[in-house]
Amino acid sequence: MRATTIHAPHDIRLSEVPDPVIEADTDAIVRVVAACICGSDLWPYRGENDITPGNTIGHEAVGVIETVGPAVRSFRPGDFVVVPFCHCDNTCAHCLAGVQSACVNHGVTSSGQAQYARVGQADGSLVKTDGMPDADLVPSLLALSDVMATGWHAAVAAGVRPGGTAVVVGDGAVGLCAVLAAREQGAERIVAMSRHESRQQVAKEFGATDLVAERGDEGVAAILDLTDGVGADSVLECVGTGSAMDTAFRIARPGSTVGFVGVPHGVELPVRTMFRRNIGLHGGMAPVRAYLPDLLQRVLDGRIEPGRIFDLTLPLDDVAEGYRAMDERRAIKVLLQP
Amino acid sequence: MRATTIHAPHDIRLSEVPDPVIEADTDAIVRVVAACICGSDLWPYRGENDITPGNTIGHEAVGVIETVGPAVRSFRPGDFVVVPFCHCDNTCAHCLAGVQSACVNHGVTSSGQAQYARVGQADGSLVKTDGMPDADLVPSLLALSDVMATGWHAAVAAGVRPGGTAVVVGDGAVGLCAVLAAREQGAERIVAMSRHESRQQVAKEFGATDLVAERGDEGVAAILDLTDGVGADSVLECVGTGSAMDTAFRIARPGSTVGFVGVPHGVELPVRTMFRRNIGLHGGMAPVRAYLPDLLQRVLDGRIEPGRIFDLTLPLDDVAEGYRAMDERRAIKVLLQP
Repeated sequence: MRATTIHAPHDIRLSEVPDPVIEADTDAIVRVVAACICGSDLWPYRGENDITPGNTIGHEAVGVIETVGPAVRSFRPGDFVVVPFCHCDNTCAHCLAGVQSACVNHGVTSSGQAQYARVGQADGSLVKTDGMPDADLVPSLLALSDVMATGWHAAVAAGVRPGGTAVVVGDGAVGLCAVLAAREQGAERIVAMSRHESRQQVAKEFGATDLVAERGDEGVAAILDLTDGVGADSVLECVGTGSAMDTAFRIARPGSTVGFVGVPHGVELPVRTMFRRNIGLHGGMAPVRAYLPDLLQRVLDGRIEPGRIFDLTLPLDDVAEGYRAMDERRAIKVLLQP
Repeated sequence: MRATTIHAPHDIRLSEVPDPVIEADTDAIVRVVAACICGSDLWPYRGENDITPGNTIGHEAVGVIETVGPAVRSFRPGDFVVVPFCHCDNTCAHCLAGVQSACVNHGVTSSGQAQYARVGQADGSLVKTDGMPDADLVPSLLALSDVMATGWHAAVAAGVRPGGTAVVVGDGAVGLCAVLAAREQGAERIVAMSRHESRQQVAKEFGATDLVAERGDEGVAAILDLTDGVGADSVLECVGTGSAMDTAFRIARPGSTVGFVGVPHGVELPVRTMFRRNIGLHGGMAPVRAYLPDLLQRVLDGRIEPGRIFDLTLPLDDVAEGYRAMDERRAIKVLLQP
């Protein structure tokens, strides 16, 4: 099949690789209908994570079941499915507690930006639609495989509550989805920290009531000004860098929790500040499957349209250009069509 | 007045110092009836914190109001009061949110181990009893000024819930109070990590259902064994050292929150583990005043007897011996009588 592979920093190729096959009885093979590039794919792309040259890359996909292993009961070839980036049996103690990303049979999609992807624990992992969805729904369904569920997790982890003030640090696709999640979870005031006009626009569509373009000390001052010096009830940290985390802890009000979903890179947590000001931290890899039924219903009902984050659609053949566009922040998020 | 002063590591003296006086209209002066030595007093005693030679020390006290400033409305000379170690106006946004330890008019008791102590924001800080309490209630009332409220905060921060499993890391006085708090907050299984027989005994009296004497890798293995490999629903970290925090994160189940109340010393938080396993951290300086009315009622009703943690009572004159006894772990917690 044709699949995206990474060979070195900034070296993304479309390659011919062996088709994935059923390895365990609980596996399914999905023909990818739409895939996308994640902010976390940029870590290896930028040389910040180790690379195994020639490995496939990509973990966000929707598609149609091609084949299933003999133990798979709930899906059959032809079903249209959302593929959570992390696979889970949905029956172990961690899954039952809503932390499917810590499933004892955990796995991840490893060839999402390709023609086919293998999904482990298919019965537990996948969620299907009734019949084939309209083409205009596909971007929003695709967003549920990771980015929207991750933004949702940031809001859950940060304890967003009706009537409160939520501040989203980071205006990448996850940050924008976090704005949407904060709105759906009832935040009254939602501040998007963003200085890019196209992203500000999406943030406003998604429910941001305020925009703060400043960063660092000035950004902190702006948030404290907006909250009468108290700080935000909930801070959603959607970047993963030390400076984003620093901002998050400086604008969170005492007693609150910073929700974090950006894979931490170079983050040193300010434990004494956390202690002195009683500011907590919670979050991590999103348990996508936990949120998927609810989010799917919201998409089907037309209440949310997370697919709005895709501002560039490319054929899979042009995946290298997709990475460049995201790396240079020319695109918020790139949808790929195999 | 006679007051405890610290001059260098391991150099604790009873000295003659000026009486505290009303400095702000909202102050009160309390004649100390009983005071005690806190685990956090051992940090400077052991040279782990900076010392200003000759400074008074001690922040836990109960006593009788001696004088009040002209703005104090709710207290008058002769009232018996519990003095929270952190003072607060109980009216600012942080206090109203239940985070009195972050009050905008925050202060701390600075001469608790003495004949008299000045209390800032007296109306907001203090809680009084109806008349003079019986002498046998005094130790439990004294415990409410910090140690019991701090253990309570660990349980709140860790999200202890009815029916769950709570593990308390640390068998100091705070850890033992955390066991009691976990019981009162409904935990079904309460594991005290303790290897000292006298402390194990108090832990059992306070509601521990299991004891784990092992530490480090063996302690972690024992907890995982007790929880079928899942980890604890709530972990209450009551020490503040790197090794205690390390244990806490290794035994917490994915999705849970480590509640921490030990002043962090040499702690580096494992942010990538927290991310990967979705384990949060919350806690810090306890908002004593938030919990005080409820805890006072529990003491008066005889439901809890946190004063059981005091296993050595000394006249204030012998305060240096009290520090030695706690430093050498000969005593769990020392009560001082001025």
